[in-house]
Amino acid sequence: MEDSGLIALVQGASRGIGLEFARQLAGRSDVGRIIASCRDPSSADMLRELEADAPVDVLAMDVEDEASIVTAARQTAARFSRIDLLINCAGLLHDSEGMGPERRLDQLEPSNLHRSFAVNAIGPALVVKHFRNLLQASKRAVVANISARVGSIADNRLGGWYAYRASKAAQNMLTRSMAIELGRGARPVTLISLHPGTVDTDLSRPFQRNVPEGNLFSTERAVGQLLSIIDGVTREDSGRFFAWDGSEIPW
Amino acid sequence: MEDSGLIALVQGASRGIGLEFARQLAGRSDVGRIIASCRDPSSADMLRELEADAPVDVLAMDVEDEASIVTAARQTAARFSRIDLLINCAGLLHDSEGMGPERRLDQLEPSNLHRSFAVNAIGPALVVKHFRNLLQASKRAVVANISARVGSIADNRLGGWYAYRASKAAQNMLTRSMAIELGRGARPVTLISLHPGTVDTDLSRPFQRNVPEGNLFSTERAVGQLLSIIDGVTREDSGRFFAWDGSEIPW
Repeated sequence: MEDSGLIALVQGASRGIGLEFARQLAGRSDVGRIIASCRDPSSADMLRELEADAPVDVLAMDVEDEASIVTAARQTAARFSRIDLLINCAGLLHDSEGMGPERRLDQLEPSNLHRSFAVNAIGPALVVKHFRNLLQASKRAVVANISARVGSIADNRLGGWYAYRASKAAQNMLTRSMAIELGRGARPVTLISLHPGTVDTDLSRPFQRNVPEGNLFSTERAVGQLLSIIDGVTREDSGRFFAWDGSEIPW
Repeated sequence: MEDSGLIALVQGASRGIGLEFARQLAGRSDVGRIIASCRDPSSADMLRELEADAPVDVLAMDVEDEASIVTAARQTAARFSRIDLLINCAGLLHDSEGMGPERRLDQLEPSNLHRSFAVNAIGPALVVKHFRNLLQASKRAVVANISARVGSIADNRLGGWYAYRASKAAQNMLTRSMAIELGRGARPVTLISLHPGTVDTDLSRPFQRNVPEGNLFSTERAVGQLLSIIDGVTREDSGRFFAWDGSEIPW
């Protein structure tokens, strides 16, 4: 058992925001160990490079496959007595087979909606379900679910992006219900939803031309901003939705 | 083609709120025809009785089966030139095989979440997708999606009910995005989300003991209240979420 310093689990760490969370946490003196999960470690070259020279353990976990989450939680519990920080990063907006955000209602496809719900909403909740005991073993566990402002129903003024928006709204609801349930008891867990802004990753790449200058963040900057929020989070923040600048987003 | 009086489509009309909507609309002089859809007309005895002596046409449509929605829309378009009012009623909270609202996170089951999303969120959106042309042929079409206050993230103070809450939040987001998209153009369609209160139906039956006296509505009362809201709806109300008493619910 390794117990000195924070033990963090970054889910969806093979690239983008998740990889950068693992990198920045690895450089901090208050962090003891980073468990960095991804679907397929064998193809996660950059994450394996990080593992070679940082306190990072790569773990196979596919949020669309509950059995893999159960296995990952067992493997983690065999080695660590607690998780102090869980960051759920995996997200689906488009894929290489032509799935992408709908511009119009007639592009709505049930299969794309179900995949979006699986990755963006159900997956993060299943990770909390199975890592719950490890989180509750921490004195002050925080779960940060990476959401998106376009998942705010109140803030939706442009329409479109049906599957992504609906799955992030669903994720936000699950985060809120988990915050209530895990806020009870002697070892409460704090859960928050975070909007990272538009970040220069594969997820946003096809849509970056619409982003005003200065509003496209590097992963370094975005993750630094989000870690400031995570570092300052209090019990009163649990079940709330924050943007990268700390402002609260209505649901 | 039949064109005198309002033409209404009630989706999910075999029982509960949907059946009562068909009944009350059938008694109104301003309504010309009610198309009442359900998964399996052969087992919808009460709806078939209504069809026998009211201007009601029963239509087979399963919101979990997009092909059946396409067929239903084609059959409707062959007979009617427009739809003036669409009420999406089908909803899933529990079933006879033991699925029911989760009291705790460890009861979360991906299959139940996916079914809830299919019936409560994706289904109503697919109906609008395929009946859109008929709605846009009306001078003043209204779509009312039956939602629930427990689908409000802001109003969630008790937690639990993960699948139902998340699927209703997703439905609310889809309603809002559709309201924006279909609000454009020469023939805008008005879409609203409605919370009926707790109504004495099969859906609420296992949970009625927790309802304070006087707060459990008969279907007659609940549908009367919702029809008052639908009758008074304006273009400015589109994309908003109203309770049975007309008050607005935050997302």
